[in-house]
Amino acid sequence: MDLNELKNYVAIVEDWPKEGIVFKDITPLMNDGEAYKFATDQIVNYAEKLEVDLIVGPEARGFIIGCPVAYALGIGFAPVRKPGKLPRETIEMEYALEYGTNTLTMHKDAIKPGQRVLITDDLLATGGTIEATIKLVEKLGGVVAGCAFLIELTELHGHEKLNGYDRLILMDF
Amino acid sequence: MDLNELKNYVAIVEDWPKEGIVFKDITPLMNDGEAYKFATDQIVNYAEKLEVDLIVGPEARGFIIGCPVAYALGIGFAPVRKPGKLPRETIEMEYALEYGTNTLTMHKDAIKPGQRVLITDDLLATGGTIEATIKLVEKLGGVVAGCAFLIELTELHGHEKLNGYDRLILMDF
Repeated sequence: MDLNELKNYVAIVEDWPKEGIVFKDITPLMNDGEAYKFATDQIVNYAEKLEVDLIVGPEARGFIIGCPVAYALGIGFAPVRKPGKLPRETIEMEYALEYGTNTLTMHKDAIKPGQRVLITDDLLATGGTIEATIKLVEKLGGVVAGCAFLIELTELHGHEKLNGYDRLILMDF
Repeated sequence: MDLNELKNYVAIVEDWPKEGIVFKDITPLMNDGEAYKFATDQIVNYAEKLEVDLIVGPEARGFIIGCPVAYALGIGFAPVRKPGKLPRETIEMEYALEYGTNTLTMHKDAIKPGQRVLITDDLLATGGTIEATIKLVEKLGGVVAGCAFLIELTELHGHEKLNGYDRLILMDF
């Protein structure tokens, strides 16, 4: 397995979730034990080099990427969720969509001040989700050591929202 | 770390999501590297004994439990999601709630006929979610080798929906 081969496990879905969008579906990659392990191990190696203390990922695909990395390193995982999903005291961050806004939340006690955090997600598109997640982590006193994505949609320039932050991208589309 | 100690990492939240419900919040467990690894390793050992080929978990906390198990065993993970979240051809299963119904979906190609499946979730409550997930797995030709949960709320008798299926419960409340 290598990174070029990994692309074979991403399904290209035309006109989803709406006409004109070409969706990159990672479920075939997760479904294949070898491909899923290979992809995860790249992020585990990256996290080791960054000496991170905690993995943070937005729901729900950020959990699929980040949870095995946390397990492999014997460190914790903190979820970023939509409003109304976390039962204890939270902080919130709003971010702009093409039309309207979205809000993401984290538990107030999810990060100990000074902890080095790796943020994981499947996809870097316009960068709205990762930008809001970085702000949540920093508001809680965490240090964003890096961000890891399976896929970047390079035409959408999401990396411009990551200036000054280290990142790992496994595949460009 | 032992199973009794693991209970210390479950936060008890009164009156959430609504009055009268005492919610069991597993985010402190996931947040602690040692506790998260210990809990996951119990499920990994169980899955090894059952000789499973694939992990299946309902969104979103089923991902947090199941994805590290799939990674540890070098096998795949297939998500069970709410309608409108999976981009390719799906099958659906409706199940009853206290008021109304819910629907869960899986990709039609998520399971190869005959694959031995372990279903993972954080919580066995009334058993509606696990019952629908079992039906989805079996409709796709999978064999449910077992079900693993961090927590069972024993008063809700969800295990009655699991008659004839092997199961692992790490903590009773």
